[in-house]
Amino acid sequence: MPIGEFDLIDRYFRPLGSAPRRGPRGVVLGVGDDAALLDVPAGQWLVAALDTLVEGTHFLPGCDPLSIGHRALAVNLSDLAAMGSEPAWALLGLTLPSAEERFIEAFARGFGDLAARFGVSLVGGDTTSGPLAASVQVLGFVPPGQALRRDGGAVGDLVFVSGTPGDAAAGLGLERGPAGGLTVPTGAAAAATTLRNRFLFPTPRVDLGLALRGLASACIDVSDGLAADAGKLASASGCGLRLDVEALPLSEALLDVAGLFRAREFALTGGDDYELCFSVPPSRLAELADALERGGCAARCIGVLEPEAGLRVRLDGRDSGLPTAGFDHFRCAL
Amino acid sequence: MPIGEFDLIDRYFRPLGSAPRRGPRGVVLGVGDDAALLDVPAGQWLVAALDTLVEGTHFLPGCDPLSIGHRALAVNLSDLAAMGSEPAWALLGLTLPSAEERFIEAFARGFGDLAARFGVSLVGGDTTSGPLAASVQVLGFVPPGQALRRDGGAVGDLVFVSGTPGDAAAGLGLERGPAGGLTVPTGAAAAATTLRNRFLFPTPRVDLGLALRGLASACIDVSDGLAADAGKLASASGCGLRLDVEALPLSEALLDVAGLFRAREFALTGGDDYELCFSVPPSRLAELADALERGGCAARCIGVLEPEAGLRVRLDGRDSGLPTAGFDHFRCAL
Repeated sequence: MPIGEFDLIDRYFRPLGSAPRRGPRGVVLGVGDDAALLDVPAGQWLVAALDTLVEGTHFLPGCDPLSIGHRALAVNLSDLAAMGSEPAWALLGLTLPSAEERFIEAFARGFGDLAARFGVSLVGGDTTSGPLAASVQVLGFVPPGQALRRDGGAVGDLVFVSGTPGDAAAGLGLERGPAGGLTVPTGAAAAATTLRNRFLFPTPRVDLGLALRGLASACIDVSDGLAADAGKLASASGCGLRLDVEALPLSEALLDVAGLFRAREFALTGGDDYELCFSVPPSRLAELADALERGGCAARCIGVLEPEAGLRVRLDGRDSGLPTAGFDHFRCAL
Repeated sequence: MPIGEFDLIDRYFRPLGSAPRRGPRGVVLGVGDDAALLDVPAGQWLVAALDTLVEGTHFLPGCDPLSIGHRALAVNLSDLAAMGSEPAWALLGLTLPSAEERFIEAFARGFGDLAARFGVSLVGGDTTSGPLAASVQVLGFVPPGQALRRDGGAVGDLVFVSGTPGDAAAGLGLERGPAGGLTVPTGAAAAATTLRNRFLFPTPRVDLGLALRGLASACIDVSDGLAADAGKLASASGCGLRLDVEALPLSEALLDVAGLFRAREFALTGGDDYELCFSVPPSRLAELADALERGGCAARCIGVLEPEAGLRVRLDGRDSGLPTAGFDHFRCAL
């Protein structure tokens, strides 16, 4: 049932403007004027990211709008997490072929549930007609000089990844059906559901990013494949990288559905993980367990920054030959 | 010629990160990491807006990418102008069917020329593949309490509009060709070019918005049709509005191409003007000439805020009967 545009905003998006903040809200004027007025806390840098999800590129046609709303915000919060930033506000540009209330209700619920969980207020944006897409811009804070960046790593720093990379890529493969090239083995139905949900409802590692401030020497979020993104961290830090395939943290669900060989391939080259990859100086390792505890997330050492440029993926002491190209879509963060 | 995504960013978008600011730049870290780090000047509120342009909804298929890049930023700067805000930074989400260098070069030039003119630095965003669209998010500053809002008008305040509304809608009609329902009269070719350029390359009234701080009681940008947007200002201010058709400032170009009757209709109901509509208390009128001088833009009194709710469009002392619905696309600012 198509509904009017003002009804739509009032009913589903305006309530998302008042998420209970973990810190001060700072919203002087939210949804409803030409722009939002925001009060950035004194002594904080502003952190800003914008990512777009497009039907057919980032999610499959017919995808549950609950997932689209969740992911549109999650991929952006993941960018803030990678900077060690506390999220605060979001703006949403939602493009829809038609104003279908059922779609909008579910999209707003997926977006709103995640926003409430991380204390993010929706403060502006627009809705427009056109091919299905969602652009979200998020704003957060970080104390001056404490942001995690890609370029702070040094030779000898150990490289970690949070969670279990590869799950989301396998989940997308399952969502694609036969075209995804994955069949669910007998008895692995629950594992398959786990993987699908890892793609459809990723958890941005906001708390981990905050806990890594002052400890990680560099950090990046894993969206385009672990090997590719870890390689970007190494390259930005002026280093090379050795990754050890045996060290990859693989979930039981991924192993059950894909088997060891393909699980490793998914973990190295699959996209959409939204985990954090970060480097820690060996002298600081003793502090990591406490940070992971505060971050509410496990992480595993998967490699080391080396002096020679380039990416070396090792298995059983030799070059693995596993593909490391990552996500080679025409898609790129500015 | 398709080019690689990293080449694309380095060549065309990274240079837009260093526009010479009119004020302090405040960019700690721009394009190239997971998010931008920005230093908001002490004692300023942040002003944030996000607007999306979609092919077929906001611009015609085959539109010059120079215009798309210009308009994607201009419509957002217009939102900042309506708040009396000084623009500072932008993030860009650009969705393209393919990475065509010629398109990207012209888009970036259109975006970049306008950004340089208003001291805006491009600090982040993403490029992605999909149906042609551009989401831009802009950030600016305003001293606390000095922002122009829609809801500050009072009964008796006079209502003004800048520039010459209706030009852009007529220009779009001309761009549509025969489907636009406009034919260019003999001798009006130059006027037609003027109108087309008013649609393709609108000037956001940033300086006027700044000059109206502390003087205008309410302000809105005119994007969906003057009557509709002026009505929103009145409604947000808890007033009604009388508009006088004779007072509409009409350009010679519009009169030459469309004639008086249709010119008035374009001015009242056409979209895409990106002028400012604002109210001024009668007691402050003496200060307006100086503000318009500083704002670099003319403005004309077109009506008055009245106690009775609703919009009354008067012509020759009686109800005009002119349509006032404005832009009724499914398109709405949050």
